[in-house]
Amino acid sequence: MSKAEHQDAPELSADELRELDAHWRAANYLAAGQIYLLSNPLLTEPLKPEHIKPRLLGHWGTSPGLNLVYTHLNRVIGTRGLDALCVWGPGHGGPSVLAGSWLDGSYSEIYPDVPRDGEGMERLFRQFSFPGGVPSHVAPEVPGSIHEGGELGYSLAHAYGAAFDNPDLLVACVIGDGEAETGPLAASWHSNKFLDPVHDGAVLPILHLNGYKIANPAVLSRLPAAELDQLLRGYGHDPLHVTGDDPAAVHRALARALDEALDRIALMQRSAREGGVTERVHWPMIVLRTPKGWTGPAEVDGLPVEGTWRAHQVPLAGVRENPEHLRQLEAWLRSYRPEELFGPDGRPVAEVLACVPDGSRRLGATVHANGGLLVRDLPIGSLDSFAVPVDKPGTTMHEPTRVLGDLLRQVMQDTRTRRDFRVVGPDETASNRLQALYDASGKAWQAETLPVDEHLDRHGRVLEILSEHTCQGWLEGYLLTGRHGLFSCYEAFVHIVDSMVNQHIKWLRTARRLPWRAPIASLNYLLTSHVWRQDHNGFSHQDPGFVDHVLNKSPEVVRVYLPPDANTLLSVADHALRSRDYVNVIVAGKQPCFDWLSMDAARAHCARGAGIWDWAGTENGGEPDVVLACAGDVPTQEVLAAAQLLRRHLPQLAVRVVNVVDMTRLMPREEHPHGMTDFEYDGLFTADKPVIFAYHGYPWLIHRLAYRRTGHKNLHVRGYKESGTTTTPFDMVVRNDLDRFRLVMDVIDRVPGLAVRAAAVRQEMADARTRHHDWIREHGTDLPEIADWTWST
Amino acid sequence: MSKAEHQDAPELSADELRELDAHWRAANYLAAGQIYLLSNPLLTEPLKPEHIKPRLLGHWGTSPGLNLVYTHLNRVIGTRGLDALCVWGPGHGGPSVLAGSWLDGSYSEIYPDVPRDGEGMERLFRQFSFPGGVPSHVAPEVPGSIHEGGELGYSLAHAYGAAFDNPDLLVACVIGDGEAETGPLAASWHSNKFLDPVHDGAVLPILHLNGYKIANPAVLSRLPAAELDQLLRGYGHDPLHVTGDDPAAVHRALARALDEALDRIALMQRSAREGGVTERVHWPMIVLRTPKGWTGPAEVDGLPVEGTWRAHQVPLAGVRENPEHLRQLEAWLRSYRPEELFGPDGRPVAEVLACVPDGSRRLGATVHANGGLLVRDLPIGSLDSFAVPVDKPGTTMHEPTRVLGDLLRQVMQDTRTRRDFRVVGPDETASNRLQALYDASGKAWQAETLPVDEHLDRHGRVLEILSEHTCQGWLEGYLLTGRHGLFSCYEAFVHIVDSMVNQHIKWLRTARRLPWRAPIASLNYLLTSHVWRQDHNGFSHQDPGFVDHVLNKSPEVVRVYLPPDANTLLSVADHALRSRDYVNVIVAGKQPCFDWLSMDAARAHCARGAGIWDWAGTENGGEPDVVLACAGDVPTQEVLAAAQLLRRHLPQLAVRVVNVVDMTRLMPREEHPHGMTDFEYDGLFTADKPVIFAYHGYPWLIHRLAYRRTGHKNLHVRGYKESGTTTTPFDMVVRNDLDRFRLVMDVIDRVPGLAVRAAAVRQEMADARTRHHDWIREHGTDLPEIADWTWST
Repeated sequence: MSKAEHQDAPELSADELRELDAHWRAANYLAAGQIYLLSNPLLTEPLKPEHIKPRLLGHWGTSPGLNLVYTHLNRVIGTRGLDALCVWGPGHGGPSVLAGSWLDGSYSEIYPDVPRDGEGMERLFRQFSFPGGVPSHVAPEVPGSIHEGGELGYSLAHAYGAAFDNPDLLVACVIGDGEAETGPLAASWHSNKFLDPVHDGAVLPILHLNGYKIANPAVLSRLPAAELDQLLRGYGHDPLHVTGDDPAAVHRALARALDEALDRIALMQRSAREGGVTERVHWPMIVLRTPKGWTGPAEVDGLPVEGTWRAHQVPLAGVRENPEHLRQLEAWLRSYRPEELFGPDGRPVAEVLACVPDGSRRLGATVHANGGLLVRDLPIGSLDSFAVPVDKPGTTMHEPTRVLGDLLRQVMQDTRTRRDFRVVGPDETASNRLQALYDASGKAWQAETLPVDEHLDRHGRVLEILSEHTCQGWLEGYLLTGRHGLFSCYEAFVHIVDSMVNQHIKWLRTARRLPWRAPIASLNYLLTSHVWRQDHNGFSHQDPGFVDHVLNKSPEVVRVYLPPDANTLLSVADHALRSRDYVNVIVAGKQPCFDWLSMDAARAHCARGAGIWDWAGTENGGEPDVVLACAGDVPTQEVLAAAQLLRRHLPQLAVRVVNVVDMTRLMPREEHPHGMTDFEYDGLFTADKPVIFAYHGYPWLIHRLAYRRTGHKNLHVRGYKESGTTTTPFDMVVRNDLDRFRLVMDVIDRVPGLAVRAAAVRQEMADARTRHHDWIREHGTDLPEIADWTWST
Repeated sequence: MSKAEHQDAPELSADELRELDAHWRAANYLAAGQIYLLSNPLLTEPLKPEHIKPRLLGHWGTSPGLNLVYTHLNRVIGTRGLDALCVWGPGHGGPSVLAGSWLDGSYSEIYPDVPRDGEGMERLFRQFSFPGGVPSHVAPEVPGSIHEGGELGYSLAHAYGAAFDNPDLLVACVIGDGEAETGPLAASWHSNKFLDPVHDGAVLPILHLNGYKIANPAVLSRLPAAELDQLLRGYGHDPLHVTGDDPAAVHRALARALDEALDRIALMQRSAREGGVTERVHWPMIVLRTPKGWTGPAEVDGLPVEGTWRAHQVPLAGVRENPEHLRQLEAWLRSYRPEELFGPDGRPVAEVLACVPDGSRRLGATVHANGGLLVRDLPIGSLDSFAVPVDKPGTTMHEPTRVLGDLLRQVMQDTRTRRDFRVVGPDETASNRLQALYDASGKAWQAETLPVDEHLDRHGRVLEILSEHTCQGWLEGYLLTGRHGLFSCYEAFVHIVDSMVNQHIKWLRTARRLPWRAPIASLNYLLTSHVWRQDHNGFSHQDPGFVDHVLNKSPEVVRVYLPPDANTLLSVADHALRSRDYVNVIVAGKQPCFDWLSMDAARAHCARGAGIWDWAGTENGGEPDVVLACAGDVPTQEVLAAAQLLRRHLPQLAVRVVNVVDMTRLMPREEHPHGMTDFEYDGLFTADKPVIFAYHGYPWLIHRLAYRRTGHKNLHVRGYKESGTTTTPFDMVVRNDLDRFRLVMDVIDRVPGLAVRAAAVRQEMADARTRHHDWIREHGTDLPEIADWTWST
């Protein structure tokens, strides 16, 4: 089939070829101009040092290849009336995508101060990598982009995320050969086993082999052609190879390959959608092999540059000082014959613009790259139908994430037609107790199924692959194109995507400041199977530090919630799913956990973010002697158990119990929009009483958040301190000094005058810890007094 | 060739088959026993509920497959006299590797309280996943292991790291089909393009397709056989397929495949070593397809278990309560015919042990898995020959990492014969200015080379691949097997390996507590191309948070250094390269940086870790009015410039300048072995004077480290606060309020009484910032007064 279609695809006409080449030359000229020129953008006079930027910054090497793809995508979008988006993996080639969007007019529509004329061209050049200007990479500022061009490896996962549930969209994805060496990219090739040809759009990977990274050959570019072909077929693709350094020949070959690929995609989609074909298809892809820094200087200072790693950034580095470099630059720029490409007013001539599609079909203008314009509120009903009844705190138990699963099932159900909600996770949806979801949607799967399999579904919207990177990339792409989702992950292993979430937070921070970018749905994490309950695993699965990582980032974007029970989890999740432009981190357990708050109380508590649980304390309206604070489900249980012990053993002591759901409430108001004022903070925690804070994660985080508070010197925090292993739940808290007995001892140690008065109680607590220690080593289970504990006043 | 050798390999004899099967059955019995049994280990009486553990924890599913590999590796090690190590990717199958090492006797040699007899077997069973016992995964406690079995994805990179520069070693590596979906694993297949058949050992990947992960089919196990074969050939391997569920047939096929693979490996190594063959070879590998939970219960409660995801952890979950489960467990255990495998004393019978090799060839006893026994001190000469001369602080400049490059070159040179030192990095060794290394060793490369390439070397020890994961995995494997190395990485992108370094730190923390594990060389990071100098890139490349991440981890393992100039970098690197069992994070710039300290002064300063730079301050022996503290090269420059401004504008003010190299010095002594006592701290920072601290990274880290200090309330920290973009170096510090002018303003604002007196100076500083702002937006460069600034008193 492919051979025939290949031959059937009509050759480019001479006019088409000329037009494509004109567009490509114009883009190359504009890319080089951005790197080098401060003024004289049209080379109307001979190039002089003062026309050159004082600091030459940017990445030329990848730009001609990206320009070539932009040019040719323009053509097929136009000829086929496609709805298309392109993800630019080698997005450090910012000059290229900026050039493309300036040429297609979308840039000037968004930034009218950079019009598509000579004046605009000068601004386009000057602003690039210039202080107060635009970044050197494809970034949120660039029209048509959903993919930051900094850290490499995520383009293909982003592309699939964009294609899911977008049946009419073509997502082209340029993958650099350097990027292809990264783990996340290598894993994401298998995304094609999760793409539904019926409900999803198509992804067209374009592997750009330009041979070199910053300083080394790229591995894939140095495989024998047959070996590379096997690899790509093994990834489930049917590759089309385009190789060359003669522009006309490459234009022809790429046009042919694109036509063939798009014909095949159309046929495959038709077969699945109309013909009911369910066999997994091998999607086409293109391998584009062109020289790095193609059309740039072939040699500089006697060393080869074009086609080598030396073309990676700025091929001619001494232009202002070195007349020969200046001469070479001028020759290079004039080699594009700018006088044929731009009128005297700097406007691109008709031939250059002939291939550019119209309106919102332009790559720089596609609404899919500004997903906030498409996003609709999720249909989330009243939480009351999912809430667990709580007549009395701490007497019934539920698995919080299982309760959340019912809510998510309903959302999945209610988006069945809209198909704009997905849940992703690395093989852990059921392990994380969210399996109710499968009642509303199976798990996406296009590979082989066996009779014994459960819940696999060619059209499913639950996505499970054992790659946190791929999960994260998919969800980011899905959200950035205007949809909703949730990533459920083991708490410890979410660190795998630390670096990815960094980039997404940076994207959101920047996008929020761009008036033309509409707010998108938040990236929601459910971190569960957390540090305190890793019975099957142990130390390797214990790390609560993602919260610390995220809280280093832009406060306008990050939110962290530690709901202490099922109903608070519902409330927090509801809030997160409705929110926009945030990264919401929700940490909640999957093991049975006491129900503390009724739905109404949970709503009110979560709205405040932190509050006094007066039913749990003993202060009776006066000033407390001590504050027991907690954040997280297990710490909350231990604090309440400690409060109960104190009530029994030291009934005169006025104890206040404070629970914190929203961690950013602890920050100063000036540092985070959710931060409490000092007045509020002191109202909760007092300005001068001892505060014993039991926290889910690393204890110093609380100090880092609260160090400016008046009462900070009285703050004593217990949390996880890397004392992890395979053991019982209660032994975990004992090992980390977060247990109820230790907390009571802390109270006794810190309330002035109590140490002497309560010495016997303190000893009793110490004895209980020893008893525990001995018991679990003998029986392998927690003490019955712990296992059977419930709250009572 | 392969076909012939395949047929030539002798079949197993009936005796061999019986022996192998006996060993495998014994291992399976022991694996199941560990998950279930508290007592009655030999089933000498009928199984009762009280023999069963109260909490059933562990992973059965992968264990039979791992056992099979252990058994068959035993055989070939013995028959061929191999030096071998095995990396167990599905290391959550801890019961299996524990069983193997108990059977080969190495376990009891290390842990004499768990002898290889009935009593020992009872202890082996009881301790597993039991409080106070051993973790459920392959962990440092397990003899013969270098690979924690928790987080998936790193086995193959670890295996290659172990094989580098170990020409006589075979590293077998079991890769789970779930693990194979992860990005790091997917990337690491290409490690074979970096393995030198002359100086490196061999890696034999064994891809274990058991079909399912926790809850889903594994992607690779559901590819058509031909597609999987293409994928693996595309990865550069020549796969041998072993498939089956009939034990005898699988034994025969696996033995044949192993023989063939090892024959091929031997031939390839001979061709390269003796025949001088330099063409890249396609290494053999094995695809082992057996059922998940093989030989376990076929069905439980009417649902299929063996061969499905339900076998992943504990196939029979209700054994204590459910008599039918108990019955099934007993039948399952007895199906291995323990009475044939173990004598009445519980010792394994001769048939079981027939395949076990001798002494240090045993997988549990290989010295390569206890690399500290092999590690030798690096030959590091005097630093004086690499030091830059410093007559006067702040008048000359060097690129610190380039200076370090000379030292590394010498170490590389002096280990030319020993070959126990490697430098790894993601394509950035030259970008990070360490290219002097290439004078002593090229870059490892076995793929195609072109005439234009530079420094590629079939025998090189500099490793560059654009995958931080692979770099980290290689280096970990290399260190764990007793060698040395350094990972040079862009600061922002080291977050890519956040999760990997977590696991390595956990490994080291645990290993340090095991007396039989000898200390290994530290994992050394050089983080450069750091946040303050990202001219070509910008926001996406700006993140100094790795330090925060690492400082959450075990203080006995982590060290963080921020040398302010070239000579301090030399001193710190020297210390790191000599150290053991640490993770050393060194953050240093590659851009020209002022030289502040002579080599002698640098040595003394680094030994203290933090100290007063009296030549920079104005206190003249008295108490200062204010302390200007700094950590990091750029903050140090700004602080010294601020000190100079203060000296000029407010000559009466007594200013102390403190520089911190070792960040952990700021921590309390009780929390970190390097931590200062309060007496020391107050001696440096005072107890009551304002401290303006200019820090390289996120400012709140300093508060988190110093919140317990007496003078903490006077501590005011400036650092990076996510104000990143593509701009000039000085604009970066201005945007983040870390610039000299802002620091002077901070001093004026915080020294009591100064605000009024120095109002004019303060205004002058504010004006300078405005002048800067206007200048760079016009010229695109920093103000000449900044660009040309040098230190003088």
